[in-house]
Amino acid sequence: MSDKSRFLRLPVEPFTIVPDASVDDLLTRMERISFQGRNLATARRIWERMLGDECTIFLGAAGALSAGGLRLILAYLIEHRYIDCLISTGANLYHDLHETRGRRHYIGSPREDDARLQEDRIDRVYDTYANEDEFVDNDEWIAAFALTLPHRPYTSREFLYLLGKYLWEQTGQCGILTAAYRASVPIFCPGVADSSIGMGLSQARHQDGGAGHIDVTGDIIESTNLVLRRPRTASIVLGGGTPKNFINQATVQAEFYDSAVRGHRYALQIVTDVPHFGGASGATLEEAQSWGKLATDAEQVTVHADVSIALPVLVTALAAGARETLAARKPLRFDLSGPIMAVEGRPFPQAQFEAGDR
Amino acid sequence: MSDKSRFLRLPVEPFTIVPDASVDDLLTRMERISFQGRNLATARRIWERMLGDECTIFLGAAGALSAGGLRLILAYLIEHRYIDCLISTGANLYHDLHETRGRRHYIGSPREDDARLQEDRIDRVYDTYANEDEFVDNDEWIAAFALTLPHRPYTSREFLYLLGKYLWEQTGQCGILTAAYRASVPIFCPGVADSSIGMGLSQARHQDGGAGHIDVTGDIIESTNLVLRRPRTASIVLGGGTPKNFINQATVQAEFYDSAVRGHRYALQIVTDVPHFGGASGATLEEAQSWGKLATDAEQVTVHADVSIALPVLVTALAAGARETLAARKPLRFDLSGPIMAVEGRPFPQAQFEAGDR
Amino acid sequence: MSDKSRFLRLPVEPFTIVPDASVDDLLTRMERISFQGRNLATARRIWERMLGDECTIFLGAAGALSAGGLRLILAYLIEHRYIDCLISTGANLYHDLHETRGRRHYIGSPREDDARLQEDRIDRVYDTYANEDEFVDNDEWIAAFALTLPHRPYTSREFLYLLGKYLWEQTGQCGILTAAYRASVPIFCPGVADSSIGMGLSQARHQDGGAGHIDVTGDIIESTNLVLRRPRTASIVLGGGTPKNFINQATVQAEFYDSAVRGHRYALQIVTDVPHFGGASGATLEEAQSWGKLATDAEQVTVHADVSIALPVLVTALAAGARETLAARKPLRFDLSGPIMAVEGRPFPQAQFEAGDR
Amino acid sequence: MSDKSRFLRLPVEPFTIVPDASVDDLLTRMERISFQGRNLATARRIWERMLGDECTIFLGAAGALSAGGLRLILAYLIEHRYIDCLISTGANLYHDLHETRGRRHYIGSPREDDARLQEDRIDRVYDTYANEDEFVDNDEWIAAFALTLPHRPYTSREFLYLLGKYLWEQTGQCGILTAAYRASVPIFCPGVADSSIGMGLSQARHQDGGAGHIDVTGDIIESTNLVLRRPRTASIVLGGGTPKNFINQATVQAEFYDSAVRGHRYALQIVTDVPHFGGASGATLEEAQSWGKLATDAEQVTVHADVSIALPVLVTALAAGARETLAARKPLRFDLSGPIMAVEGRPFPQAQFEAGDR
Repeated sequence: MSDKSRFLRLPVEPFTIVPDASVDDLLTRMERISFQGRNLATARRIWERMLGDECTIFLGAAGALSAGGLRLILAYLIEHRYIDCLISTGANLYHDLHETRGRRHYIGSPREDDARLQEDRIDRVYDTYANEDEFVDNDEWIAAFALTLPHRPYTSREFLYLLGKYLWEQTGQCGILTAAYRASVPIFCPGVADSSIGMGLSQARHQDGGAGHIDVTGDIIESTNLVLRRPRTASIVLGGGTPKNFINQATVQAEFYDSAVRGHRYALQIVTDVPHFGGASGATLEEAQSWGKLATDAEQVTVHADVSIALPVLVTALAAGARETLAARKPLRFDLSGPIMAVEGRPFPQAQFEAGDR
Repeated sequence: MSDKSRFLRLPVEPFTIVPDASVDDLLTRMERISFQGRNLATARRIWERMLGDECTIFLGAAGALSAGGLRLILAYLIEHRYIDCLISTGANLYHDLHETRGRRHYIGSPREDDARLQEDRIDRVYDTYANEDEFVDNDEWIAAFALTLPHRPYTSREFLYLLGKYLWEQTGQCGILTAAYRASVPIFCPGVADSSIGMGLSQARHQDGGAGHIDVTGDIIESTNLVLRRPRTASIVLGGGTPKNFINQATVQAEFYDSAVRGHRYALQIVTDVPHFGGASGATLEEAQSWGKLATDAEQVTVHADVSIALPVLVTALAAGARETLAARKPLRFDLSGPIMAVEGRPFPQAQFEAGDR
Repeated sequence: MSDKSRFLRLPVEPFTIVPDASVDDLLTRMERISFQGRNLATARRIWERMLGDECTIFLGAAGALSAGGLRLILAYLIEHRYIDCLISTGANLYHDLHETRGRRHYIGSPREDDARLQEDRIDRVYDTYANEDEFVDNDEWIAAFALTLPHRPYTSREFLYLLGKYLWEQTGQCGILTAAYRASVPIFCPGVADSSIGMGLSQARHQDGGAGHIDVTGDIIESTNLVLRRPRTASIVLGGGTPKNFINQATVQAEFYDSAVRGHRYALQIVTDVPHFGGASGATLEEAQSWGKLATDAEQVTVHADVSIALPVLVTALAAGARETLAARKPLRFDLSGPIMAVEGRPFPQAQFEAGDR
Repeated sequence: MSDKSRFLRLPVEPFTIVPDASVDDLLTRMERISFQGRNLATARRIWERMLGDECTIFLGAAGALSAGGLRLILAYLIEHRYIDCLISTGANLYHDLHETRGRRHYIGSPREDDARLQEDRIDRVYDTYANEDEFVDNDEWIAAFALTLPHRPYTSREFLYLLGKYLWEQTGQCGILTAAYRASVPIFCPGVADSSIGMGLSQARHQDGGAGHIDVTGDIIESTNLVLRRPRTASIVLGGGTPKNFINQATVQAEFYDSAVRGHRYALQIVTDVPHFGGASGATLEEAQSWGKLATDAEQVTVHADVSIALPVLVTALAAGARETLAARKPLRFDLSGPIMAVEGRPFPQAQFEAGDR
């Protein structure tokens, strides 16, 4: 006999318009609708559970988030410790630095004549413009900063900490890099060579052959040690790209050294890419389970949406609803001032994975 | 000499987190970010301008909006006259009828075993379930209703008005069909044969060879006459499909009979499809201008987002911010009770386009 | 103990470049690669199996296939009986008629200024142009034809048969409509009101109030009877839209009248839409199984690709590889000349579903 | 007066089925259809023109191309010098190494239970499986190789050359890395830290604190010097990601040192991502012009398609049609054996950009 009741338990609750609703209330009621609206609402609940659990929360940020007006959301998440570690593309950090230094991005049009923009040295990111001359100046500013550092390799994590510190000292302005410096939240940038920060470093090298050494292998070790130190982890991914894989790679690498590592306990991703072309950005969280990147019993959700819509809604609602959970949270305390990070006062080993069972 | 100031006028304003923000405030601040977040915020402003102008607002609804929990938003838009005419797929009206009759859709999973669902006669729409036995009952209910109607062709507009009336009398419940009946807002369903409403009609025909005649050609004439009567029109499209083209076709057909018709003055579409495969659902609003579907000076915006995220945010903010504009609006008054619609007391001609200059 | 061999059976075979390869050979070797390349190659094999089985093959065509240069592929499939029944949007039939009448579509650019196009009365479909004056002439030609028909309702299937006949008599040119007429292959157009064919019909009505009656309810019955007559069916979908649902609806409706109907035995779809927004165009074939649209043991594949790339490759390879299978195929013989279709000499009942077990 | 003839010059030529057609012929006839089919055909012509011009051709490869069965196409392009420089994700090189070492990827299903796969240590890439134990062995093999290298920083370019050399000596098998070694074609991997190659390097470091130093800043300088040496360049992008930006960054950085650099003269990209979310992967080639990444008069085309469909078709047709052009081509001769690359016998400067006008 058919047993429909297994499947027909919780009805969809049609969304009703409450004109003065708060974002928190809106998203709460979206939990009972369908499709990506429901997924966005679910994402908030999963993030809340990450905060209520004792776990290390990684956030990966790809796409033109900073140029597009979302950098202060990331700064907020860092400052208030909704996350413990940021993995970013170079562009997001570079455009953050651009604004922290007092420059702006501008409202533009995706249909402007790009030949005219080139002529006027305006760089376009879809519907957003920037002044290329200011970008050239940023590159030189980064190069000048890099030239002040002693000649040795720096992980991207250490370099970005020092860059954030310098930026804070110079500007006193809030942004991703400065918030991370002040909150001692580590930032990794595994693809730093593929960004204007990398261009600044190469200009430093041009002037001084010993400058501009970034040790990306050290980044792999340090990010893996973060997982080895506390294998209870969570992954939040905005947009895919290198940050998504780097976060997942850390758990795979950690499992190689300690079989107790089982993958992230929580995962949420906000992506516009799709799985069926085989690329990592669009890969499902189920696929991540086959690799052990994600625990098979993880709580997880994928939201198929533009981050520029999803993130303002999600973080506003989270900030309203998770106040107590956040207040009760005891985030990891990092010391990022040296070449080797310390967590809760205990440094990682030098150039080594922390001992597991291998 | 370069003149960057032409392009660099209005800076992007980074979005900041205000935990207790209203949806209205959230969307207001999203006007100054980039990408689809900005477009969603712009959509609200354009809709406001539609309401403040004396124009006829068409809304097209494709995609599983009713099954997915958005039907009461559409009912709200109809009841409060944010729109003047709905063009819908059959499915959205059918799933609305299903719930108005007291049945529900259910929270499900896109990863359930569909063979098991088939066995238990559960129909799945991505992450949403319905009881197929209830659908069979709906079909028969629609057939029974159709059998009560005198033998003659009915435009989908007239049929849906009568269906809404009967549904209201039977249930007294709010929904798309009943709200449209009560507010005398016309609904067209150009693809009615491609839906379970069509299936109900065919079951009526099976029992009575003279029943179930829908006159879709009449729908074309009546929708065109709406444009001819007042060529100042606006188009809101949710998801593309037949409703999108039908709304545009009305202006093209109207222009054939009256060269003063110049296309919609306002247009907003929320779509997930893209232009580059050549299909109508993803076509840009610029392309629509080549056809004269849209005035070349129209205010317009495309939001690339799932309607299940975009619509709750958009309509909540609109309802908060457009109160006065809406109160001042004088929407067209329709009489929908006969085979030929009357507008402001004046009926359209029988089986003819209203005289223009042709 | 781990048993990897369950999963690791058939290796991916890296594709190698053979400069003079035939399309048939290319696609054969693509069966051993991954992602959508493999799916496209699999689609050919499934279509071959449809041809080798005794089943009724439905093909649904949405998107601007005719304007985009694919209409003679559809004509080829009809003429050589790779398919038994076409379900099309009105636009594809209209643009086919346009070319069969000797007019052309033109190579254009998606970046042209649409205001200039409007001024010159050029209609744009992404990167393709048409002369709007010729479209106006087509509409009037269709209206004039519709005015020659006796006053009674016509299913879209009967109307399109008569239109194809007239078009053939007038032009003697090959196209979708004329090939279907000559091969007696039925065409359904459930959304005919949403197309320029519908506009032509409305112009006929404008001149003669008794003209232009299309009986879309009759289409539902006739398409369902096709399934009831031989429940062994296959579904090929290009692009989603109303044709996709109409093909599936026929099996659902048929099952209502005959519980022996179990859904399509084969299904292949070439779509660019995705499942996670809940719309029917992007719905997976698994989801179709929950509804009984597709048999739970059906052979099926979804190809995520633009039809303008996939179809030329797929049909060329199919035509090369399936010669013998096609020669052995005994396609259904239809008589389409009257209001009620006959199959293998036996007409369907008038205004009724063919008796099943209900 | 209207002048339609400006726009209506070249008609779309409906594609006809020629069962035994070669891929070359197929693609030639697809030049006269529309949408992405036309774009794919155009891509071949633009690549031909790159080959016929005296320019440096960069190819960027992102997405799971090697796992998905496309690695020997890349090897073919390298060996026959259809390209001059490869920029790749680490994953594509790693999966290439995996197969060159004699292991395989396997045909799988996107719907398999990932918990079972995890249990059996099978890694899934959409519809493709790999043996995780073999991956672990690869990592250790890479680590062992890295430990043989003297302690100093290596650009990814130099490291990959040495890895290809070693791989060739060990296996004698054809693949991307070995073909590039044998043809002295440089490979850059700007995101090497975000891949299993990076994991292997980190395991080397774990064993020997002086091992595994990759100098990504050096990669920026060397790739820029390639552009400075001969500013006439072309960009071919498969799938976006870090390779796409790295290729474009090289021209931007080069322009900083030499104002004669004007951006790529030719560009073709095959992507599935879209522009409207603001990410670099989906960015249009027009947008690239605003940055000076692409010359404003460049010949360019974007193909929206899965590389697993587009690449086999494109390269097969190119190989057939461009034989003479290729034979006449004089590709740059590289010496890659040292830390600093030499081109046509002339090495780049040490740790410096080659002198331009800055």
